[in-house]
Amino acid sequence: MDYQSQFESAIEALHAEKRYRVFADLERIAGQFPKAIWRHDGKAREITVWCSNDYLGMGQHDDVIAAMTATVSAMGSGAGGTRNISGTNHPLVELERELADLHGKEAALVFTSGFVSNEASISTIAKLLPNCLILSDELNHASMIEGVRRAGTKKQIFRHNDLEHLEELLKAADPAQPKLIVFESVYSMDGDIAPIEKIVELAEYYNAMTYIDEVHAVGMYGPRGGGISERDALAQRIDVIEGTLAKAFGVLGGYIAGTKAVIDAVRSYAPGFIFTTALPPALAAAATASIRHLKASQVEREAQQRQAVRAKSVLRGAHLPVMESDTHIVPLAVGDPDLCKKASDHLLQRHGIYIQPINYPTVPRGTERLRITPTPLHSDALIETLKDALVETWNAVGIPFATERPTHAERSSKVTPLVVSQAGG
Amino acid sequence: MDYQSQFESAIEALHAEKRYRVFADLERIAGQFPKAIWRHDGKAREITVWCSNDYLGMGQHDDVIAAMTATVSAMGSGAGGTRNISGTNHPLVELERELADLHGKEAALVFTSGFVSNEASISTIAKLLPNCLILSDELNHASMIEGVRRAGTKKQIFRHNDLEHLEELLKAADPAQPKLIVFESVYSMDGDIAPIEKIVELAEYYNAMTYIDEVHAVGMYGPRGGGISERDALAQRIDVIEGTLAKAFGVLGGYIAGTKAVIDAVRSYAPGFIFTTALPPALAAAATASIRHLKASQVEREAQQRQAVRAKSVLRGAHLPVMESDTHIVPLAVGDPDLCKKASDHLLQRHGIYIQPINYPTVPRGTERLRITPTPLHSDALIETLKDALVETWNAVGIPFATERPTHAERSSKVTPLVVSQAGG
Repeated sequence: MDYQSQFESAIEALHAEKRYRVFADLERIAGQFPKAIWRHDGKAREITVWCSNDYLGMGQHDDVIAAMTATVSAMGSGAGGTRNISGTNHPLVELERELADLHGKEAALVFTSGFVSNEASISTIAKLLPNCLILSDELNHASMIEGVRRAGTKKQIFRHNDLEHLEELLKAADPAQPKLIVFESVYSMDGDIAPIEKIVELAEYYNAMTYIDEVHAVGMYGPRGGGISERDALAQRIDVIEGTLAKAFGVLGGYIAGTKAVIDAVRSYAPGFIFTTALPPALAAAATASIRHLKASQVEREAQQRQAVRAKSVLRGAHLPVMESDTHIVPLAVGDPDLCKKASDHLLQRHGIYIQPINYPTVPRGTERLRITPTPLHSDALIETLKDALVETWNAVGIPFATERPTHAERSSKVTPLVVSQAGG
Repeated sequence: MDYQSQFESAIEALHAEKRYRVFADLERIAGQFPKAIWRHDGKAREITVWCSNDYLGMGQHDDVIAAMTATVSAMGSGAGGTRNISGTNHPLVELERELADLHGKEAALVFTSGFVSNEASISTIAKLLPNCLILSDELNHASMIEGVRRAGTKKQIFRHNDLEHLEELLKAADPAQPKLIVFESVYSMDGDIAPIEKIVELAEYYNAMTYIDEVHAVGMYGPRGGGISERDALAQRIDVIEGTLAKAFGVLGGYIAGTKAVIDAVRSYAPGFIFTTALPPALAAAATASIRHLKASQVEREAQQRQAVRAKSVLRGAHLPVMESDTHIVPLAVGDPDLCKKASDHLLQRHGIYIQPINYPTVPRGTERLRITPTPLHSDALIETLKDALVETWNAVGIPFATERPTHAERSSKVTPLVVSQAGG
């Protein structure tokens, strides 16, 4: 066995499929969002980031930076241990209270990432319910899929946002069997929204628990940033709300909110929570500052929606293939992994615009795309520059414009189904 | 199905077994390590932490705090995306170079926690080796066990640090089958060290890959803090070295170091890496500052070893049951979960000394203990105060002193074996 060659061939396979990923080395500049320094071939160049998940630019907000620097100076850099082994720090306790309040729940629990929060919570909740059946949307994020897998219990996948299919599965199950429906509010690769109220009604009728992932919605939807479940006044009818501190809130970490009992059970039984060093106090304080700001301020949410609508309209006006989206996410259809990578490279090298390619397995083969995320800080002028750069790139690389593309019906017959959905990476 | 009552009973089961965990709410005070503020029943009180995994107090080192505050101010609070989606920041790229250099390896990869680094790396490496056999030490950390489980490949557990058992298993396996030996250098609950050189020799003879967890050794052992594998000049003969930024380096995150091919393979294939927001630039910069300091300075390592030796000697002199340990970790045998919790509570409430109880499943039933971690900043005077407080507590709670305890042979016959080792939480 030649171990080295095994790993080398695994990498070559990705090159052959044109989906080997190169990470752009970026240095963000506080106060100049969405500008960043791109380091490449020994050179440093200023570029504009158009694909950040710091959706509202809060990672550079004065209050957030001030809370973080003050707490580092007062309490140091790390937490110093797991939650149990002296790592539970006071800013983290305050953050969990803030999150419980944000979602109108009794309690909340913070993890070091959204990935871990989904994986640890879904698997632990399902394991604590004897013979649990998990019902999972087919486009759920990779972290939810890992949680479902690790639960080791029975699962059924329902077609994306398909209420009839979900009801069929609920109806077919034993009424006495515990059931957990796991789904997202905003699906981040397409920007569509789940029919949450209808899912909740089905859950109530068939006595199922509900677990919603709001990572692409918290901070951005609802009058206090509580997500789509807050906007639609449904939070009280959902059992567990999962969210992230790393996107609209601009920091790092994930969390769940729910009843005291469910939170305490996950806290007490999930290895991925128990055996991990606690979030540093400075990150907890920064996240709290961000949440508090967005509970009160509508400015960022309104500006984000306005610029997203504007971007869609300007790009459509130039016949660029903007995909349907109900949210702040603006996907542009490319439909080929090689062209997608070439377009991204061309945009960066020629125009100083960074939008990473989204290829399989993040999206199904045949639906490769560029995924644009306008923020409140992407001005009208930046949108015009983006449009011009995209049109030049579409011509240079040879990607069909909207007017030249097959209709939806023609296209969907060519799409390879996604074996394992792994959106978001 | 009454969901709420399921979670409530799960919690009651822990209370009944006397192993329900209450997290102490601590606020560390930069510059006054190991002092902290303990908040309880609406009151705030200054206490001394004796169980921190910030083993060298680097979480409050001036260079580390300065690097972190400067980077927050310059680049903001979060990374803004996964490594692929605009989250790869320049300080993180520099940190990975620093870590590769620390271990004399071609490359390194940073994760947001040590738990995820083990789980994602072990499972991904094993999956990429067709029909891989994993050989795993029975006392490996929970995160390594999760990695082994998730690999879904054949595994065999060898008795703790037992070279004969390991060789027996290697000999019995098909010579052509890929094999991965996973083990730790320092086992943190007992403080013993693996026979690394002998394990490496066996791996070379039987053509197995080696994966070592050095989380309780990096920063603290070796002339540059490269861990036991550096101290014993074995790093070049080990394939993958895993470590943490959250203990001796005082920040947050985990990592692996190895050849370019193995690092690139994990980077490209591990969902737990791909789908997680990158470590914030400020944490990366803080970690780099800490590693650089400890590469050059011996002061912290020498002081830690001196104070650990002194603590063991002073506590043994007072007939406290100090368990055998080859390292900086000082475990005190209690042998009962209820007494262990009571001793911890009494120490905190009566003496303002925080040492959390270590009960099952972190250690086998019957071996419950207090785990003390002297740092360079625990002075001789603090050790004297600790000794007096422990003696008073041992008498007050009714725990046997060393002179009153059964011999090792008598004791080990009573110990319940550990079904699943889950050290470290």
